[in-house]
Amino acid sequence: MPRYTLGELANRLGLELQGDAQYTVSRIATLVNAGPDSISFMADARYRKYLAETRAGAVILHPGEKEYCPGNALLSDNPYLSYAQLSALFASTPDSDTDLVHQSASIDPGARLGKGVRLGAHAVIGKGCLVGDGVSIGAGSVIGENVQIGDNTVIHGNATVYHDCRIGQRVVVHAGAVIGSDGFGFANDQGNWIKIHQLGRVIVGNDVEIGANTTIDRGAIEDTVIGDNVIIDNLVQVAHNVRIGDHSAVAGCVGIAGSAEIGKHCAFGGGAGILGHLSITDGVTVTAMSLVTNSIEAAGVYSSGTPLEPKSRWQKNYVRFKQLDEMARRVKALEKQIQKLTEEG
Amino acid sequence: MPRYTLGELANRLGLELQGDAQYTVSRIATLVNAGPDSISFMADARYRKYLAETRAGAVILHPGEKEYCPGNALLSDNPYLSYAQLSALFASTPDSDTDLVHQSASIDPGARLGKGVRLGAHAVIGKGCLVGDGVSIGAGSVIGENVQIGDNTVIHGNATVYHDCRIGQRVVVHAGAVIGSDGFGFANDQGNWIKIHQLGRVIVGNDVEIGANTTIDRGAIEDTVIGDNVIIDNLVQVAHNVRIGDHSAVAGCVGIAGSAEIGKHCAFGGGAGILGHLSITDGVTVTAMSLVTNSIEAAGVYSSGTPLEPKSRWQKNYVRFKQLDEMARRVKALEKQIQKLTEEG
Amino acid sequence: MPRYTLGELANRLGLELQGDAQYTVSRIATLVNAGPDSISFMADARYRKYLAETRAGAVILHPGEKEYCPGNALLSDNPYLSYAQLSALFASTPDSDTDLVHQSASIDPGARLGKGVRLGAHAVIGKGCLVGDGVSIGAGSVIGENVQIGDNTVIHGNATVYHDCRIGQRVVVHAGAVIGSDGFGFANDQGNWIKIHQLGRVIVGNDVEIGANTTIDRGAIEDTVIGDNVIIDNLVQVAHNVRIGDHSAVAGCVGIAGSAEIGKHCAFGGGAGILGHLSITDGVTVTAMSLVTNSIEAAGVYSSGTPLEPKSRWQKNYVRFKQLDEMARRVKALEKQIQKLTEEG
Repeated sequence: MPRYTLGELANRLGLELQGDAQYTVSRIATLVNAGPDSISFMADARYRKYLAETRAGAVILHPGEKEYCPGNALLSDNPYLSYAQLSALFASTPDSDTDLVHQSASIDPGARLGKGVRLGAHAVIGKGCLVGDGVSIGAGSVIGENVQIGDNTVIHGNATVYHDCRIGQRVVVHAGAVIGSDGFGFANDQGNWIKIHQLGRVIVGNDVEIGANTTIDRGAIEDTVIGDNVIIDNLVQVAHNVRIGDHSAVAGCVGIAGSAEIGKHCAFGGGAGILGHLSITDGVTVTAMSLVTNSIEAAGVYSSGTPLEPKSRWQKNYVRFKQLDEMARRVKALEKQIQKLTEEG
Repeated sequence: MPRYTLGELANRLGLELQGDAQYTVSRIATLVNAGPDSISFMADARYRKYLAETRAGAVILHPGEKEYCPGNALLSDNPYLSYAQLSALFASTPDSDTDLVHQSASIDPGARLGKGVRLGAHAVIGKGCLVGDGVSIGAGSVIGENVQIGDNTVIHGNATVYHDCRIGQRVVVHAGAVIGSDGFGFANDQGNWIKIHQLGRVIVGNDVEIGANTTIDRGAIEDTVIGDNVIIDNLVQVAHNVRIGDHSAVAGCVGIAGSAEIGKHCAFGGGAGILGHLSITDGVTVTAMSLVTNSIEAAGVYSSGTPLEPKSRWQKNYVRFKQLDEMARRVKALEKQIQKLTEEG
Repeated sequence: MPRYTLGELANRLGLELQGDAQYTVSRIATLVNAGPDSISFMADARYRKYLAETRAGAVILHPGEKEYCPGNALLSDNPYLSYAQLSALFASTPDSDTDLVHQSASIDPGARLGKGVRLGAHAVIGKGCLVGDGVSIGAGSVIGENVQIGDNTVIHGNATVYHDCRIGQRVVVHAGAVIGSDGFGFANDQGNWIKIHQLGRVIVGNDVEIGANTTIDRGAIEDTVIGDNVIIDNLVQVAHNVRIGDHSAVAGCVGIAGSAEIGKHCAFGGGAGILGHLSITDGVTVTAMSLVTNSIEAAGVYSSGTPLEPKSRWQKNYVRFKQLDEMARRVKALEKQIQKLTEEG
């Protein structure tokens, strides 16, 4: 369990400390659940009510909030970012007294491993792989032939990377993720599906996060490309030939169909769907469970869907949806009749 | 293949037998497909038509239905529950003549295993794990450091449990499930995503079922908590800090966003979505593919969405959705005009 | 890297060549990105503009398009099908100088393997399995007891097949897929969920594709059945007792609930949902993210859902959805009033 003095934390995070530099904290906690051993943070003024009563040994907050802070304060222009940086200091690190490469890992003699590479039990590294310095590959993960993995990337347990894929530096791939599976490509021969072999690769940039059990298919002919600093949550499907621009964020259960091109700094809410062969410009946000059916050419927030209601009320409205077009025509007819009556009147 | 006399089954299930106690059955079958070697059940009077013609050797049914049963009957106030209990008697059990711990399993010397623990080939048990009596861990599953697993829990093949998580007793975790992956937490630093290390755990109660390839993220600071007797289907995403109350049921492909608090005895239909930072009270049912966007404070059934139609008809109504607000204003305007005309008239 | 003369390709694909039979190509490329070393194809006249400018060494196209082709042409009545057949000639094949069965694979002595079976590192084959000729099972995959796998089937890494399942010939199962996990069956005993043990199997036909991290549950009593030449994308959930007819296609993130019966030649767009205990006839297409709530008895295309809009506009329409039934009543009332006014007028 790491312990830090507030002076050390102020120094590491580049923040001004107002309080006792020798005070020691050993965990991060929310304002509500913090104790004297905890450092907390307030990133939103809505939580000010908890600030007054917190038992935290120190709180990271905006300079404008310091008057409301009863104890030690670390002042940050972006407290949430400072919390993110702080979290890295409290994250558990691999045990330094265990062997780096587990004896049961299977490493093809034709693979090249950098310095300080960690391989969990039963991890598999295929022929021709190039694994960068400081890479960690979890137990049971399978890295196919000729895969390249950049420095300091972490792949958790039971993930699978197919042959020829490229993964950048400082990438995190969570357990069960699959990178480089075949795209869903078939030609129809008189009702019979004939497989189109998928000859492209998946190229993942630097500083990317790929969630647990997420799947990213290899390209049909060219590559599927995930830009730098793209963050992808769990159970997301990225189809073949998709391109996702730098710094975009994809929440859980999103599906992105084949050949969709997504810009930079986009964000997709949970369960959203994006159809194939369209393009979405930079800076587009799509809210949860919305379906993108056409290209989007203007930055902004987009949505589809209907509101949640008690089922009995919803059903009444739901059946009326089938009459919408008819209702529009009837409203138009009424307007004409009224017009006529008014003129006659 | 197990075989039971009806007398034995009546005794084991605590049911009254009307018929031949020495009659032997060796499998469970539906009324339609049963043969003389089968025991069947009728849990719904709608299937009464099949009861008359069944060839089953015996049928579990409600006492009120016995007059319609042509053969041996086992009388139950809850035939579906009796069928569930019966199914356990016919389930395949691990082969008793195989070694409990496969020689290829990797067990850290710092792990502690209870009595009668089964480990499949290439299973991995990390340092500091506490594995209860009678636990079964499938081939290729990876249990991280300091995980605790309660007695008689079954983890199927290729599942992954991250460090520090706690799993209760008599839990079933299906293949490929991931428990304890990082929650999707990032701070934005001028367009750049900075990872927030996820310091909490996943705490899973007793008698829980977790489906294949389902993912449950660890908490950011505090824990993600799955209550007792929660049942979760396949490909479900449970985000960080979520809390699910006892006896709730989550069908396949559901996504639950971060910090959602779900009550007891709730049920979510397939593909439903629950946004984050909201709470749902006890006894709420949400139907398939509905999206919960706000807290729900009253028990009941909730829905969103529109009806399925032939595409050509649907398209006409679909485009009208964009005019709904305008249409409402036009209806209001018409009402005013009519009002005026009527008054004038 | 394979190389072919155009004469050889014309012969292998059964196409007429117009051009230089000795010309050699070594990769497939799109019209836009092709170089002189590439063979390309045009399956849609919309790409004719790229045809004129392509640098491809040869192009597969319809005889009716040959006048627009500046160089070597291979004439096909179905260019997309010819491309699919071509792709197989350029697909990477396993390294012939590696051992077929990795020494770390775990094969139960009671399993029977056909000729030319490939097993990756740490693959697990359970007792009683019958593995056909030419089958390839990827690293880390787990095949439970008494599973049968037909000739020339390929199972990629970290997939899991539960006991007793049957998989046909020439099937492709992608990484992380789970076949035969327990169906989601529970009886409710006064609020308590009691597990119904799932005694059926999964039966997969011939020439089937199953995507990465897709899950197919075993039947409760009878079997879950996937017909011949069914193609299933990634992250699809197929619940217990489902039956999918031959030649149907299921895109990514689709969920099919228990006991749904799906016909032949059906197609489901990404994220579509199908409720349980219903039947869908042959030749039905359901568009992306639509929900099927009732049986479908006529072939055709079906949809549900609302259009994507900028959030500010969508919200105005979204809230009106709750007033739809009321609006319909108000329109009807207006019609009556107008009728009355007109008659009075």
